[in-house]
Amino acid sequence: MAKTYNQLGLIGCGLMGGSLALALKRAQLVRHVVGYSKSPSTTARARQMGVIDTEAQSAMQACAGSDLIVLAVPVAATAELFKTIRQFVQADALTMDLGSTKQDVVQAAEKLLGWNAQYFVPAHPIAGKERSGVEHADAALYQGAKVVLTPTPATDLNKVQQAQALWTALGAQVQVMSALEHDSALAAVSHLPHLVAFAYVNSLLSQRDSEQLLSLAGPGFRDFSRIAAGDPVLWRDVLLANRTEVAGRLRELVLCIQQFQRALHAQDAQALEKLIASASRARGQWQQH
Amino acid sequence: MAKTYNQLGLIGCGLMGGSLALALKRAQLVRHVVGYSKSPSTTARARQMGVIDTEAQSAMQACAGSDLIVLAVPVAATAELFKTIRQFVQADALTMDLGSTKQDVVQAAEKLLGWNAQYFVPAHPIAGKERSGVEHADAALYQGAKVVLTPTPATDLNKVQQAQALWTALGAQVQVMSALEHDSALAAVSHLPHLVAFAYVNSLLSQRDSEQLLSLAGPGFRDFSRIAAGDPVLWRDVLLANRTEVAGRLRELVLCIQQFQRALHAQDAQALEKLIASASRARGQWQQH
Repeated sequence: MAKTYNQLGLIGCGLMGGSLALALKRAQLVRHVVGYSKSPSTTARARQMGVIDTEAQSAMQACAGSDLIVLAVPVAATAELFKTIRQFVQADALTMDLGSTKQDVVQAAEKLLGWNAQYFVPAHPIAGKERSGVEHADAALYQGAKVVLTPTPATDLNKVQQAQALWTALGAQVQVMSALEHDSALAAVSHLPHLVAFAYVNSLLSQRDSEQLLSLAGPGFRDFSRIAAGDPVLWRDVLLANRTEVAGRLRELVLCIQQFQRALHAQDAQALEKLIASASRARGQWQQH
Repeated sequence: MAKTYNQLGLIGCGLMGGSLALALKRAQLVRHVVGYSKSPSTTARARQMGVIDTEAQSAMQACAGSDLIVLAVPVAATAELFKTIRQFVQADALTMDLGSTKQDVVQAAEKLLGWNAQYFVPAHPIAGKERSGVEHADAALYQGAKVVLTPTPATDLNKVQQAQALWTALGAQVQVMSALEHDSALAAVSHLPHLVAFAYVNSLLSQRDSEQLLSLAGPGFRDFSRIAAGDPVLWRDVLLANRTEVAGRLRELVLCIQQFQRALHAQDAQALEKLIASASRARGQWQQH
């Protein structure tokens, strides 16, 4: 059973944070939401939309009196935020971030959160939309989504259970693992594909005939390259924060590409068919849960 | 204005050929369809479905008396088919294939079709469905699709115009280019992404934690890897037939991936953001026409 919280202090009222506030309200898991965004117009918009109930003037103010604190800011801004709020986290307040890399957040928490690190449960809900901003906040965003929790050595186990219960009550599927496991896995299934899609679109743009090429692109191109439209600042930060894991996964991909290069060079139809068949079978069987 | 044909001789009654027969019938551009497939049950099914009107016992029989001949067989089977039918193509019969690589088909036509090469217009409708087979034939498959015609030096210009008029009447957008231009462009926008998607899925499968990885995969993975479920025999043939162009495009991709590797290694946030921004802008603006 998920606990009901008296007050959510939401720091960052964008798509991810705003959707979580709406979902918690709809599930009646929180009575009151105090929100703060760096941009006052975002905070005002969030209140007009009913995503938050009260506008805070600062991150500290959003923490005061909150028994649930959610940091929904860009990963690169998380460490600074820890410094700002550490004196203002109320004892026993479940504190979570929503960032898509976790080792950097865990390190910053261990270094900067001090005594409050026991209340902090790093979380990564694997969900999103093409468009960011509180305007697109959606109470159903986390319904059916996977959420990974990566507790630090300092995290209180009761807090992990509270976080699990909260996300489960919102319809998410929770997995608990180490920050390293998380970053390594996400490098493989998300960060590397983004890097490759970015590089692929750049390789088309570098061609003299790039317009002609793009005019012939069909549904395969559309899907394969969709994630290349991602936000440059967000993905810059993700790739930098997780560069070691991404580089490792990239080396593995290059080895597998070289198998294709060798089979093509040798015109080895049998080897080529085998390479394709293994991928085709696995991808054909894969289903999103 | 597209000409009306008395008889379509359809060789290969699968998704692509079957859809073309249905589209031509619906547009009243053909009065009668004689069909032949290697598998008699496919031919029978095509007749039961009304895709064809008469079952032919051989490819030769499908050609006899047809003023429009469509070869809708796997690319690797086209050369053999040229040898089989070259004595049976009626004078002045517009003849097209639908294969997704064109240099190999053009070379085979020049070598094997002899005098009939003047009637032959190599065609590649850039369309398809997840599932193949005459059961999925669809009169609207080519509506809005791009169709590339790659006439050989021997092709009669009148035949190119006839083919253009035919596809345009079905709602397709026709481009005429050389077989080399076609294969080079398709290597970039279709064949290379397939190769990379296959290799990417294989790289996940090679991991000890591949099941864990796949359980964390979300919508980005879903779209990026969708084409990895492609048919192994079809893609083996396409990649082999177009291996030179694919290898060239792959080298360009690798150069662009190396730009990312360098920026990550140097932790050069500015360079990284610039690389991502160029891809993101271009992909954000791209629209399928």
